[in-house]
Amino acid sequence: MPQNISKIKKIGVLTSGGDSPGMNAAIRSVVRACNYYGIVCCGIRMGYEGLINDYVVELGPRSVRNLINRGGTELKSARSQEFRTKEGREKAAKTVKKHNIDALVIIGGDGSFTGGTIFQKEHGVPFIGVPGTIDNDIFGTDYTVGYDTALNTAVDAIDKIRDTATSHNRVFFVEVMGRDAGFIALNSGIATGALDILIPEEKDSIEDLFIAFEKAQEKGKSSSIVIVAEGEKLGGVYDLAKFTKMKYPEFDVKVTVLGHIQRGGSPTVADRVLASRLGVAAVEGLIAGKSNVMAGMQSSKLVFTPIEEAIKKHNEIDKDLIKVADILST
Amino acid sequence: MPQNISKIKKIGVLTSGGDSPGMNAAIRSVVRACNYYGIVCCGIRMGYEGLINDYVVELGPRSVRNLINRGGTELKSARSQEFRTKEGREKAAKTVKKHNIDALVIIGGDGSFTGGTIFQKEHGVPFIGVPGTIDNDIFGTDYTVGYDTALNTAVDAIDKIRDTATSHNRVFFVEVMGRDAGFIALNSGIATGALDILIPEEKDSIEDLFIAFEKAQEKGKSSSIVIVAEGEKLGGVYDLAKFTKMKYPEFDVKVTVLGHIQRGGSPTVADRVLASRLGVAAVEGLIAGKSNVMAGMQSSKLVFTPIEEAIKKHNEIDKDLIKVADILST
Amino acid sequence: MPQNISKIKKIGVLTSGGDSPGMNAAIRSVVRACNYYGIVCCGIRMGYEGLINDYVVELGPRSVRNLINRGGTELKSARSQEFRTKEGREKAAKTVKKHNIDALVIIGGDGSFTGGTIFQKEHGVPFIGVPGTIDNDIFGTDYTVGYDTALNTAVDAIDKIRDTATSHNRVFFVEVMGRDAGFIALNSGIATGALDILIPEEKDSIEDLFIAFEKAQEKGKSSSIVIVAEGEKLGGVYDLAKFTKMKYPEFDVKVTVLGHIQRGGSPTVADRVLASRLGVAAVEGLIAGKSNVMAGMQSSKLVFTPIEEAIKKHNEIDKDLIKVADILST
Amino acid sequence: MPQNISKIKKIGVLTSGGDSPGMNAAIRSVVRACNYYGIVCCGIRMGYEGLINDYVVELGPRSVRNLINRGGTELKSARSQEFRTKEGREKAAKTVKKHNIDALVIIGGDGSFTGGTIFQKEHGVPFIGVPGTIDNDIFGTDYTVGYDTALNTAVDAIDKIRDTATSHNRVFFVEVMGRDAGFIALNSGIATGALDILIPEEKDSIEDLFIAFEKAQEKGKSSSIVIVAEGEKLGGVYDLAKFTKMKYPEFDVKVTVLGHIQRGGSPTVADRVLASRLGVAAVEGLIAGKSNVMAGMQSSKLVFTPIEEAIKKHNEIDKDLIKVADILST
Repeated sequence: MPQNISKIKKIGVLTSGGDSPGMNAAIRSVVRACNYYGIVCCGIRMGYEGLINDYVVELGPRSVRNLINRGGTELKSARSQEFRTKEGREKAAKTVKKHNIDALVIIGGDGSFTGGTIFQKEHGVPFIGVPGTIDNDIFGTDYTVGYDTALNTAVDAIDKIRDTATSHNRVFFVEVMGRDAGFIALNSGIATGALDILIPEEKDSIEDLFIAFEKAQEKGKSSSIVIVAEGEKLGGVYDLAKFTKMKYPEFDVKVTVLGHIQRGGSPTVADRVLASRLGVAAVEGLIAGKSNVMAGMQSSKLVFTPIEEAIKKHNEIDKDLIKVADILST
Repeated sequence: MPQNISKIKKIGVLTSGGDSPGMNAAIRSVVRACNYYGIVCCGIRMGYEGLINDYVVELGPRSVRNLINRGGTELKSARSQEFRTKEGREKAAKTVKKHNIDALVIIGGDGSFTGGTIFQKEHGVPFIGVPGTIDNDIFGTDYTVGYDTALNTAVDAIDKIRDTATSHNRVFFVEVMGRDAGFIALNSGIATGALDILIPEEKDSIEDLFIAFEKAQEKGKSSSIVIVAEGEKLGGVYDLAKFTKMKYPEFDVKVTVLGHIQRGGSPTVADRVLASRLGVAAVEGLIAGKSNVMAGMQSSKLVFTPIEEAIKKHNEIDKDLIKVADILST
Repeated sequence: MPQNISKIKKIGVLTSGGDSPGMNAAIRSVVRACNYYGIVCCGIRMGYEGLINDYVVELGPRSVRNLINRGGTELKSARSQEFRTKEGREKAAKTVKKHNIDALVIIGGDGSFTGGTIFQKEHGVPFIGVPGTIDNDIFGTDYTVGYDTALNTAVDAIDKIRDTATSHNRVFFVEVMGRDAGFIALNSGIATGALDILIPEEKDSIEDLFIAFEKAQEKGKSSSIVIVAEGEKLGGVYDLAKFTKMKYPEFDVKVTVLGHIQRGGSPTVADRVLASRLGVAAVEGLIAGKSNVMAGMQSSKLVFTPIEEAIKKHNEIDKDLIKVADILST
Repeated sequence: MPQNISKIKKIGVLTSGGDSPGMNAAIRSVVRACNYYGIVCCGIRMGYEGLINDYVVELGPRSVRNLINRGGTELKSARSQEFRTKEGREKAAKTVKKHNIDALVIIGGDGSFTGGTIFQKEHGVPFIGVPGTIDNDIFGTDYTVGYDTALNTAVDAIDKIRDTATSHNRVFFVEVMGRDAGFIALNSGIATGALDILIPEEKDSIEDLFIAFEKAQEKGKSSSIVIVAEGEKLGGVYDLAKFTKMKYPEFDVKVTVLGHIQRGGSPTVADRVLASRLGVAAVEGLIAGKSNVMAGMQSSKLVFTPIEEAIKKHNEIDKDLIKVADILST
């Protein structure tokens, strides 16, 4: 075990915002890395709520055994209104002081990182962020923890829907998660051979969708799946289904909203390994004196991105991939 | 190979009504059993629509290879309005005559069997039914083909929802399939440790649900899943969520409708084996001169039930199981 | 909550012998049922080893939360040599006395039940058995806890093997678990369309296997899977592969032993519900004064079978099912 | 549809060498991309064997429907001895001429690409390679088609093994695929919290393994999984188990060889999307006049690598990842 000569003797770890598969793997990684470097690790339950209300528990390497493959977050997560207030953050600072916590690892998304930044500015608590969200929309990392699992869960579900769509010559509108980002929609659409994929990043029109239906009919395609991202600008799946039925009364149109199943489940290997790397990196980064940065992987290399940049910019959809989707739906 | 000395030289097989996982395994079994007994087998596509419109194709043992593990139905299914008319059934009878089909195997549910019965009365075409539906509500068999798969799909999904429910201390209302029957709801509720299970067979009241919430809070249960069958009399999941939120504004209440994912997917072993047995049984039954009956398994024994009985009666929910659910949710 | 007027105030629960998926669901059910009936419940870790060495821990309803869907057994299991000695059982009796345990629920197989019977005779500790084993070979219940999961795990794996077998026109010998019983082999063989299925209950000859290969070749079947139960009398998979390669040097022959993956994994719905019912039944049986019996389900009815009978007799393979396998492999 | 003004009017596609999940998705992509660009597409069955023996079939966009999610390769694969001879390749050239095939897309690994290169040199048939192998050891692409699926299959299986290992306090040696490369071993080891991971790229010693066991015991770890790559230099899993048992007779040591299950199964999203991109890229590359190159993705960018380079060099294991494994196993 290497000697820890840095000022960091105690690290607190918390999960914040919407939960994502692999958060437990990230927690485990932070705890074990702390142990490896001779740092005490505290788990803070319920995100920033726990910081405010002193829900703090010491975690040793054995307390995170058999955790790597579990969905959800054992530390629980929450969206804290109180932490948005100066008073809330002052209470949180007292908890940090009381436990002699030298730095935080914050596992979450944009909103959670913003909270951490304000807290750091006001109370001087260093932190490193680990991107945990299924939406994959955080700049500074190719993938976020939870995205690969959510994507595979969506595709497993759409595969099942396709079985019944094909058996009945039906048109299915399937809504997948992604409020501002079409990553899950685009990739799940390609992976399931969707007729059309509607994402927030693209200006889609209902006429384009109708053209797609007509092309499909010409080619003898008898059933179709249309993937729609949650944040799609054209309207929700129910409206799209209604308009389609009005235009093509002979179609047997159905709607499925995949919803929260996309947030749970045992993480895929990619998410477990990513979470493991970033958890270790966050601890090593804090030891090295870094703060206000997010740990991410870009082109298989570890990269620390200033939090401000990670929050401001966004991962962009690959235009080539949209073209591939177009070619393959023919 | 045994000699076939019966009058049955050619059998037609079709899938009708809502599709269910295992229908392909049943088709394969009928085709292979026909081959074994020296009978020609024809697949009729699109259910009774195919009978009306002469969508008939001969199937040999190799044409059903690699089919046993696929969801949906390769013969496709449909609900035929035309077959409900005398004229429609006359067209269907011509198709039967044209192809010298001596008997039919009808894979489907109540409605499909009713159609077969009328057709048999009017045109003298013998048939045997194979119960294929995810609802498990057909009398004369302990389980229907597709039920076990749908149930496991529902539980896989609810397990994922529980991950996120637990991480956020949420209350989730999850709607599962079952228009008139609570089999999927009751069993998936027990299997996922649901707080409460609302099924059409029971008179549930919203007050009982509220009592369950309060008991749970007393015991320190911080998240809850309530399973609601599609056909539940008390109202849909959205209404239940609304009333709950009105009563307990502090609850974080979410809704998920599992929907059509429950109809697809590779069948479980139980469904594959059941479909395999019943497909063989249907062919052997027709050879033995039976008609107007449904093949089913009761207590691991093959049973032929008169179709009229299968349609009139319904499988009943096991009262003991409701008590078990009650004991275990404490 | 009903009043408990029986003499049973404290129940100990343990898992013993080979572990099986669903044991955790059974433990949870025993703990919750005890709670429901006002009985204190103790978990005994490591099977009879824990009884000897006083590994006893009190379990409340919250201590078994989120346990129903986990593979393995949280109480751990072991095969105890010491419990086979009089001295060992005397130590165990002291532990029982020390904790005022009035009765035991023993989750396990034949060997575990034999141990319980001897212990009961010598030291007067009542017990009820819950059949937990993947082999499904225990008399007095249609299915044992863990069997359905193991079977589905085996079939998932064989489906994958079939993908590669078909891609390469290969012959695969796949060994599945079942030392004395062919339930997993026969059912997984039917469910995956195996060419041949070799089980301990049948006298198979290598010549019959060769005939099956030749029939398959005549019919143009280009790849084949042969399922072999662990306890098959004809020899292991490696020998069978060797003989086959000697007879047909042109075959591309491969071997896979599925092994311990069949013992783990999240239990299927059938196993969760079965475990839930039997756990409640065991507690209710002890309250009603029963002992030395095993709780089981036969034809969907709860049945208590004298342990001696459960040990002596064995579930028998369904001959009809062997015929179905034969018909469908054509 | 864009106009195809290149000389490429007809493309042949084949899968060669060991099969991998996602090959079907790649075939589909080649066929659909050809259709999109107005090129006729021929499938060649059984790899180079099919080229020699004229197993050629025209494929339209509908002939690859419902193929993207299937394991294995519908075109079948083979290792051809005859294609290694000049005579074999001459026969193959005749087939190419006979069907007016202008170029080939070869989906496979190192060996398959070598074959394509020689064939191109001798007979002037342009080709582009698509890396399809579970081993992930091909230079010029971050990931090969099939690797992500194989890795997830391995981890699913090891998760199950861990359930039973933990229940019994056992030591399991698990062999995963990877003849020359430790990618599956290293990543599955991290993802399952393995005690130790033995890969061909590292000089492991049995003493290091024993030290790992002793550290684990000191820390109270009661069960352990050791992942061993197929090509590990120290010896096979059976030998390692034997040596371990000799050193620690009190250990309950078990062995599992995961084997061919790692080659099958429905591909993950990553593999489906990768295969889709590379299939389109291969067709577009041929249209653009490229040949003797492999299409790959590096840092989410499409890259064509000269085949010679792809064959000579190898993807290297990430040293940082080995350190992460080391930190987390503590």
